[in-house]
Amino acid sequence: MALYVYKFGGTSVGTPERIKAVAEKVKKAHDAGDQIVVVVSAMSGETNRLVGLAKEMQVQPTDREMDVLLSTGEQVTISLLSMALHNLGCEACSYTGAQVKILTDSSHTKARIREIEDTRIRNDLAAGRVVVVAGFQGVDEQGNITTLGRGGSDTTAVALAAALKAKECLIYTDVDGVYTTDPRVVSKARRLDKITFEEMLELASLGSKVLQIRSVEFAGKYNVALRVLSSFSEGNGTLITYEETEMERALISGIAFNRDEAKLTLTGVPDLPGVASKILGPVAAENIEVDMIVQNVAESGTTDFTFTVNRNDYLRARKILDDLCIQLGGKQVSGDNGIVKVSIVGVGMRSHAGIASTMFKVLADEGINIQMISTSEIKISVVIDEKYLELAVRALHKAFGLDQE
Amino acid sequence: MALYVYKFGGTSVGTPERIKAVAEKVKKAHDAGDQIVVVVSAMSGETNRLVGLAKEMQVQPTDREMDVLLSTGEQVTISLLSMALHNLGCEACSYTGAQVKILTDSSHTKARIREIEDTRIRNDLAAGRVVVVAGFQGVDEQGNITTLGRGGSDTTAVALAAALKAKECLIYTDVDGVYTTDPRVVSKARRLDKITFEEMLELASLGSKVLQIRSVEFAGKYNVALRVLSSFSEGNGTLITYEETEMERALISGIAFNRDEAKLTLTGVPDLPGVASKILGPVAAENIEVDMIVQNVAESGTTDFTFTVNRNDYLRARKILDDLCIQLGGKQVSGDNGIVKVSIVGVGMRSHAGIASTMFKVLADEGINIQMISTSEIKISVVIDEKYLELAVRALHKAFGLDQE
Repeated sequence: MALYVYKFGGTSVGTPERIKAVAEKVKKAHDAGDQIVVVVSAMSGETNRLVGLAKEMQVQPTDREMDVLLSTGEQVTISLLSMALHNLGCEACSYTGAQVKILTDSSHTKARIREIEDTRIRNDLAAGRVVVVAGFQGVDEQGNITTLGRGGSDTTAVALAAALKAKECLIYTDVDGVYTTDPRVVSKARRLDKITFEEMLELASLGSKVLQIRSVEFAGKYNVALRVLSSFSEGNGTLITYEETEMERALISGIAFNRDEAKLTLTGVPDLPGVASKILGPVAAENIEVDMIVQNVAESGTTDFTFTVNRNDYLRARKILDDLCIQLGGKQVSGDNGIVKVSIVGVGMRSHAGIASTMFKVLADEGINIQMISTSEIKISVVIDEKYLELAVRALHKAFGLDQE
Repeated sequence: MALYVYKFGGTSVGTPERIKAVAEKVKKAHDAGDQIVVVVSAMSGETNRLVGLAKEMQVQPTDREMDVLLSTGEQVTISLLSMALHNLGCEACSYTGAQVKILTDSSHTKARIREIEDTRIRNDLAAGRVVVVAGFQGVDEQGNITTLGRGGSDTTAVALAAALKAKECLIYTDVDGVYTTDPRVVSKARRLDKITFEEMLELASLGSKVLQIRSVEFAGKYNVALRVLSSFSEGNGTLITYEETEMERALISGIAFNRDEAKLTLTGVPDLPGVASKILGPVAAENIEVDMIVQNVAESGTTDFTFTVNRNDYLRARKILDDLCIQLGGKQVSGDNGIVKVSIVGVGMRSHAGIASTMFKVLADEGINIQMISTSEIKISVVIDEKYLELAVRALHKAFGLDQE
């Protein structure tokens, strides 16, 4: 008998029929003798419906009230799934985040989990019940309802798996695992049986939107074995583990890309200590997330500072930079919102030299100009013109041997 | 500065526009310097939508999970109304039943309020905020979500008014007050400016569905001044008070009726102690609510036992009686699901004789046969054939002087 945490996203519980299918899956595992905790999201479409209602009330509703509103979405699903389980003769009990309770800080709409009380869940499991928990939501010390932000249901599932020391946390989604790259771009993209947390982190943050990045961080930190698999088909999905179990692993695990990038450059700023924070501080203050940051070595006392942001934030960021350019005595601001980022990811590159030069050569052979480069221990990212995206990804996928089974 | 509890039902908050209109009304009262607590129901249609989803999961969902599901309805409304108030520049904060907290017993779907913690509400009011509370719902000692049953939002409002010692509890609904009878049946029906709790109780329980009976009981018990008025028009509605303030009041305040009745008779049962409970016990065990009960004096050792139930329960009740008839050695079971109940209500009848005989004479003059009679201190009810309903109500309305302004 082992304890598993199952998580089903909005698409997997998007209709009454799908909720019933989830109940069948859960009952099967429960009947096999395992202890099952199920974490569910709001039915797909529900969050948008609620956001629509909110927007009719107020252009910018307060975060506290948005959390009160949106948390009803999962609350509906937990009760429906419990009913579906009861209908199959399977004992089950539902809990909201506040009921569990999943204690968070008070950062509404993006709260962080502080602690999980597991007494009620353990009692229910011991009594042979399936426990159904609302994902995405928690409660702060004052009893206010909080939510964990986009993809927060994954985080709930992983946090519960950690708190309950579950054998595995199974994330059911609409894809059947993690792929070497997006199959819509490269038809030969393959599902990976295993991947390390670090690789997954890089892939997730770079645009392979299988799992929410925070849940992967959490899983890595608490050593929770995470499995991504499909609600709609059979198969073992992709296991995300801490250990590099395979000795002979590929150099590169996958190729990620992000279409929604824009870059901004501030040239000729005096190269003084603190200049980076003077530039990025005002950007962060406007809640604009910065992705890649590149600062070249200074020439004749000035430096050029380039960073990328989400394309939606381009105009706002540009305005901030225009102001800063005057304040800081810079030369000029330039930008481009027609760029994409392509990254190769793999723990193999730690112990193998020459990966970067191979990557750059592959791109050069295709006539693709590299505009920015940024590297980490297990990832190399380049910024290129958006028109080359598919070409670059396919060429790299082939060059690093990912086309082969 | 006075404290008021406002309650808006499902129709009053049925669309985003109506929620905004409610916000305007609340803000106006708040701007006038009063402290306002608002209790709201689920948007009209929402509860039915949720019940529909539940029925797709399970024919008879458990009460606990139904409460988890249905309580989301009011939670949506409290957040939306708070947003609408914020949008008008009015500070407001929402609370679910669990957050207030409204402590109830654990009778899911029909819980009773045990205690209300008013600390958070008082702090918010003192800080100048409007407090928006979800009606219909509470939480038991184990933290399970409970609901108070149909019309429970009225009960929440009255209980809050009692706990906060509000000056008045204003129940906004889609009618502009309590009428002498249903205006759809008697065009001359008039709105009452005032009515006593006792009269209101009899009127409510007899089918004038303006207020939920439990909320009126509650209001009477805790001496909360209750006012029924319309969300959609101006006017002072009807005030429901404890005292009979007017010396010269009408004998009869109103005429109530109930179309959904059916009657059942068990004849020739041995007249032994406990026979009533032997008959009504099994009926209650099936959750069938019994309304009027009439038992005639025994003749030759046997008695006839008649009661009325909701027409929807007629067949189930009949089956129980058929079984009981054999067990108890009764003669036969008869029934009629084509009957209605008409009642005259008024505290005036306490001090005036002859009201009953006037009523019976009026009906006799119209050729209406009375099938059952039941009386209380301030009410006389008769059961008649359903085809005479309108005729009876109009004749009584005129005879007791209710047609005049």
